[in-house]
Amino acid sequence: MIEHKDYCVPADTWAARVAGGDRRALARVISFLENDDPCGVAALKELYARTGRAHIVGITGPPGAGKSSLADKLIRELRGRGKTVGVVAVDPTSPFSGGAILGDRVRMQGWTGDSGVYIRSMGTRGSLGGLARAAYGTIQLLDAAGFDYVLVETVGVGQSEVDIVRVADTVVVVAVPGLGDDIQVSKAGITEIGDVFAVNKADLPGAERVATELEMMLDLGNHAAWRPPVVLTVAASGKGIPELVQAVGDHFAALVRADQLVKRRLAREKEALLLRLAERVRREILQSWSQEELARLWSDLAARRLDPYTLEERLYSVWKGAKEA
Amino acid sequence: MIEHKDYCVPADTWAARVAGGDRRALARVISFLENDDPCGVAALKELYARTGRAHIVGITGPPGAGKSSLADKLIRELRGRGKTVGVVAVDPTSPFSGGAILGDRVRMQGWTGDSGVYIRSMGTRGSLGGLARAAYGTIQLLDAAGFDYVLVETVGVGQSEVDIVRVADTVVVVAVPGLGDDIQVSKAGITEIGDVFAVNKADLPGAERVATELEMMLDLGNHAAWRPPVVLTVAASGKGIPELVQAVGDHFAALVRADQLVKRRLAREKEALLLRLAERVRREILQSWSQEELARLWSDLAARRLDPYTLEERLYSVWKGAKEA
Repeated sequence: MIEHKDYCVPADTWAARVAGGDRRALARVISFLENDDPCGVAALKELYARTGRAHIVGITGPPGAGKSSLADKLIRELRGRGKTVGVVAVDPTSPFSGGAILGDRVRMQGWTGDSGVYIRSMGTRGSLGGLARAAYGTIQLLDAAGFDYVLVETVGVGQSEVDIVRVADTVVVVAVPGLGDDIQVSKAGITEIGDVFAVNKADLPGAERVATELEMMLDLGNHAAWRPPVVLTVAASGKGIPELVQAVGDHFAALVRADQLVKRRLAREKEALLLRLAERVRREILQSWSQEELARLWSDLAARRLDPYTLEERLYSVWKGAKEA
Repeated sequence: MIEHKDYCVPADTWAARVAGGDRRALARVISFLENDDPCGVAALKELYARTGRAHIVGITGPPGAGKSSLADKLIRELRGRGKTVGVVAVDPTSPFSGGAILGDRVRMQGWTGDSGVYIRSMGTRGSLGGLARAAYGTIQLLDAAGFDYVLVETVGVGQSEVDIVRVADTVVVVAVPGLGDDIQVSKAGITEIGDVFAVNKADLPGAERVATELEMMLDLGNHAAWRPPVVLTVAASGKGIPELVQAVGDHFAALVRADQLVKRRLAREKEALLLRLAERVRREILQSWSQEELARLWSDLAARRLDPYTLEERLYSVWKGAKEA
């Protein structure tokens, strides 16, 4: 990637303004990232050295579990403790329709007057393994901008639950009674994804049973350094919220104690970097051919005049040749 | 990739034996694929021209929906109609534990004496977007080996449901009463993934309601060329199985009529090819550095002496330089 320093003047000014707490600059740089404007990455480069101070907390769970309400109450609790909070709400975008479910995000819009809170909703289109590249950059920006906590809320419909692990320091999995307990609990790997479990709407019948099932599943797991706690919450009334904040903080302390925080963060940076590289190479390979040439190759493939492994070799060689030229 | 023709002698013999219906050769080539032995790809190259004749049917749905029983009954029905059937049962492998859930696959083991049926279970480790590269190659092998149908069974826990769309001509989504209807139905995009819906265990209470909810969801969708039917089945008794086979066949005919079959298959070949290329480049990039050098780079990244975007550029340039040398 070319550094568009000249074009992005004042790129370092953008970075400096974000670092200085300028919310309008923050919004602007996030838009750069969303629009694939290289000024976004230019600012991230400048700001990277300032990252690593926020506690990044992922919140995931099935639709209807009350994640947005819970996030709202977490913000309130953290603000009460004098902490600043950035929020990235990631909307699942269907790979088919491209439509984003914005749903009940309005619930979190009551914070516009508080400069200690910054909330941004994003789709997952142009996904970097589900979580948008722009969303990942936004988390880094919020971190660099000095927020004490960055909450990442995502609807847990499979892959996004796995992706969030790569981004968050602490993952809160939200379960809820009456939503098909089998699926919630038996879902492959769900107990391995969560660092903290919240059984929300705990005033509904069945909450204790969901909690018990989770505890049993967790007892089966291998949790040497940290055994995820299960916290009963009622987002509507605020019940259990201080306990949830406590559990999240305890997990962070355990990560630091076990020397896992740096490892976990490095692993996610490596993965994101390698995915960006792969995307770039894919783009370059396809751009080594004219539209007409590509169409002919795909047509040969479809007609089985050409097998995909030979074509793979050819695409690779031609692209490599272009590099050498 | 180098063509290991000499090493793989008799590579074309392997291909010829698979094409000729030799089941032991088939099993052997699948093992090559699983072990990343280049003889596997060598055989696939030879056999590619023979693919495209099987109807590839994906079967997905939540754990406990009875997919294996349903697949078993589908095999029986298709065999009764004189068709041959290959089955690839893909086990979800947790990205964390690496453990495969083999579960109730035994249910499908009653076909060992029938040469018109071939069943292979595989994990998703070394995933190519969830579905293993080896599983994808195996589907192609079964196609080239002359099976009329290739059933691909996978547990639907998110991403795999999406991946299966890329592989199958027809996707059967299995729902079931009493497993948390909200989640089954509201799951992002599930009604967009299925070409045919089976409400299994239709003798249980609530089956009609699940079917009605699905019909309502489908009515909302945009289904110009094909409106997915909802079929009530009871795998245990065989109820609804002929209707399910009929619906699957109708969908195939509709694909052909709408000129979509070739397009859909080409799209999946392109995607698989580009993913293989990306994996290869990633491997090559990492291999351009010694272990010590890489460790130092990652350590600089972790300590924030180096930002990930500058590192990305450096990895790319060094690798590109190595290509040119």
